[in-house]
Amino acid sequence: MRICITNVLMTPGVTTQKDIPFIQDAQIHIVDHLIVYAGARTDAPAFEADEVIDGHGGLAMPGLCNMHTHTPMTLLRSIGSDLRLERWLNDAIFPVERHLTDEAVRAGTDLGIMEMLRFGTTSFNDMYMHMDMVAEGVRDSGMRAMLGHGVVDFDESCTDLIPGIAFAKKWHGSSNDRIRVSLAPHSEGATTEKVLRQIKQAADEMDLTVHIHVSETKLDRNECIERRGVTPPHYLEQQGLLERPVLAAHCVWLEEDEIELFAKRNVTIVHNPISNLKLASGIAPIARMLESGCKIALGTDGVASNNNLNMWEEIKLMPMLQKGNTLDPTVVSPAQTIAAATSVGASALGYDNLGLIKEGYLADIIIVAIDGAHICPCNDLQSDLVYSIQGSDVQMTMVDGKVLYHEGKYTTLDPKAVIARAKAEAALLFERANNEK
Amino acid sequence: MRICITNVLMTPGVTTQKDIPFIQDAQIHIVDHLIVYAGARTDAPAFEADEVIDGHGGLAMPGLCNMHTHTPMTLLRSIGSDLRLERWLNDAIFPVERHLTDEAVRAGTDLGIMEMLRFGTTSFNDMYMHMDMVAEGVRDSGMRAMLGHGVVDFDESCTDLIPGIAFAKKWHGSSNDRIRVSLAPHSEGATTEKVLRQIKQAADEMDLTVHIHVSETKLDRNECIERRGVTPPHYLEQQGLLERPVLAAHCVWLEEDEIELFAKRNVTIVHNPISNLKLASGIAPIARMLESGCKIALGTDGVASNNNLNMWEEIKLMPMLQKGNTLDPTVVSPAQTIAAATSVGASALGYDNLGLIKEGYLADIIIVAIDGAHICPCNDLQSDLVYSIQGSDVQMTMVDGKVLYHEGKYTTLDPKAVIARAKAEAALLFERANNEK
Repeated sequence: MRICITNVLMTPGVTTQKDIPFIQDAQIHIVDHLIVYAGARTDAPAFEADEVIDGHGGLAMPGLCNMHTHTPMTLLRSIGSDLRLERWLNDAIFPVERHLTDEAVRAGTDLGIMEMLRFGTTSFNDMYMHMDMVAEGVRDSGMRAMLGHGVVDFDESCTDLIPGIAFAKKWHGSSNDRIRVSLAPHSEGATTEKVLRQIKQAADEMDLTVHIHVSETKLDRNECIERRGVTPPHYLEQQGLLERPVLAAHCVWLEEDEIELFAKRNVTIVHNPISNLKLASGIAPIARMLESGCKIALGTDGVASNNNLNMWEEIKLMPMLQKGNTLDPTVVSPAQTIAAATSVGASALGYDNLGLIKEGYLADIIIVAIDGAHICPCNDLQSDLVYSIQGSDVQMTMVDGKVLYHEGKYTTLDPKAVIARAKAEAALLFERANNEK
Repeated sequence: MRICITNVLMTPGVTTQKDIPFIQDAQIHIVDHLIVYAGARTDAPAFEADEVIDGHGGLAMPGLCNMHTHTPMTLLRSIGSDLRLERWLNDAIFPVERHLTDEAVRAGTDLGIMEMLRFGTTSFNDMYMHMDMVAEGVRDSGMRAMLGHGVVDFDESCTDLIPGIAFAKKWHGSSNDRIRVSLAPHSEGATTEKVLRQIKQAADEMDLTVHIHVSETKLDRNECIERRGVTPPHYLEQQGLLERPVLAAHCVWLEEDEIELFAKRNVTIVHNPISNLKLASGIAPIARMLESGCKIALGTDGVASNNNLNMWEEIKLMPMLQKGNTLDPTVVSPAQTIAAATSVGASALGYDNLGLIKEGYLADIIIVAIDGAHICPCNDLQSDLVYSIQGSDVQMTMVDGKVLYHEGKYTTLDPKAVIARAKAEAALLFERANNEK
């Protein structure tokens, strides 16, 4: 399949630059999964396209990477709001999650993917249960994802690692490499040393990334110090886990030495500002982390603590929360923010050709309308991109060279069926949970 | 004109209740400007309507009140991002504002009103210059607003008060009482005692509300203490201003005694969480203020520090910012948040029949779609309303019984012309500003 995207303003994206570059009147040529040309239309080589996508003057940019979420939790959207974390988990979330079935998880996955595509997310990093269902949802929808079976192990039995490894072996690199897997010990508090050592060994053998929650709450940090004598980052270092590529979600309560350790070990910190505020976990010191050279990616976390999967809300919140919290308006630039939402995440998924619109890169591309009243008169597009744009401005979402969403229409999902199934499975789920009470 | 809104879920809105009430299968009857019935469809009296609005199962709710903004600043959207407040004002904003013309202000006003209507705002409270143009924009668009000429007076000349009073006399109660005016001394720091005393006297004579910036930054507070020996709230009390209805914008740096003073004096505090974060002003202690019985309304501030007029972003941020900052997830309920965005603001505009959907109330009503993937499966609509909904879910915006926006179409504005004019006026404005350099 040969696709030409035309009539767009384009940003190739951004890695560590100070400014986000833009190219007027751009054109992008795609052959199958790969970008073969991206640049000014007037410089474009001749190209016979099977399909031409008219961007109507919108902005073509790399797709967003939601680097920490629990997609099937869409079925639990908005439950347990305004509760303390322990009550939220024990009284609202766990009693329902116990009754999840394969069917419910698949329905929630499809709903989540539908929402992500609508708001311009082209890949996500997930940790949950019934992960075969999540993988099948990714496979069938055309999405890109890194998936890990969340390993919980309180008693050194390590039994939960078996499905984690089996899942990894089954799915890694599948669906034309759109699916990659991680090993996903839930957190320091929910695992034992024994299982972490086994995870390190398995990750070495299979060359996998480790995805883990780190110091989400002050309590997480304090309990780790009590149990292990060190903070979570140092404990992970002791267990050898930081020798692997690591996706560390949250990292709200990190002090200078821990930030330096994660910078040195090249850990990708996944910042989830909305979830951290809503669950009253706190405000992660992202500005300091960026200054120390840490890699910062962005995520929504599960929708039960958000309550949606619109990455544009995280994009707007990330820089302004740092400014407001440090009382310094100069910290966290638009370029750093867009990098966190795109290229940094894409690299952490393990690809070396993802997250930019560039020859040889995988074609994960979105087009965002920039003609709305809320962006006019477009004085500074870098700033508009971070602070003005709405998720609903996304007009087209392409993953791996395939259009999955375009102007209200999905190509791989039937939206009415997805919503009907999600509602039906949610009703059954809450019925099962209520019957138990 | 007799309008029937049908096929909607409805909330009559909320004032101080713990929960937001909802009525299934509701109907609303409107005659001219007023609601004559709002309740279950099955209980509705016979009603001959000139127009029937099908809500397609959406949520009918009171329109949003943006209680602190500078609408014409839409032309300055996104300029001066990431600068310190003094540089933002002195290097980015003031050098452009000096070159504003009537035409530019009118173009910016129309653009702002168009954006507000699209995102469900039905009234706003504004303080700026060239205010006749803002009033004409409100008059012609069908919007509702409280408008004040921003009075700045550094040298006891008080000359800026003359246009402020003239404006008030000209416009108060005009356009079928859709336009009300305030007297708007900019802030303690930008006015003298003499002008504040005159404003108090004029406000008494004309029975007007006072709109003023209070303790937006720590510097504002500290400089007031240096100059006046007391903090801004106590200074306003000394000048007698708190005997008037007061809209106090920002109030980021208020201590317990100041919060208690504002609660006692029934001041309406206008919280602008996005602007306060983006300009690094800080995080207002809204949870404590609510506990002390303060009235809290919500605003976007001008778009140059936001950078849009979408009140749903403030709605989501207000409660979660308090949770994250106090580390207490139980503070600030959905009901308190929706009240801040609707009924509290409506009362502060000086109406006793605005801000609820109720017989005898003014028909400022919006319909919000709740069938999107990002709201599904609608487990808890109170929480969805605050945390899941997007501004783009607004399907219909009615002010004073007149539909101003419905499913992509405006009835009083020509969107293409508004955007073209805003772009042209912005270009001229920046050209004038650049020529001066």
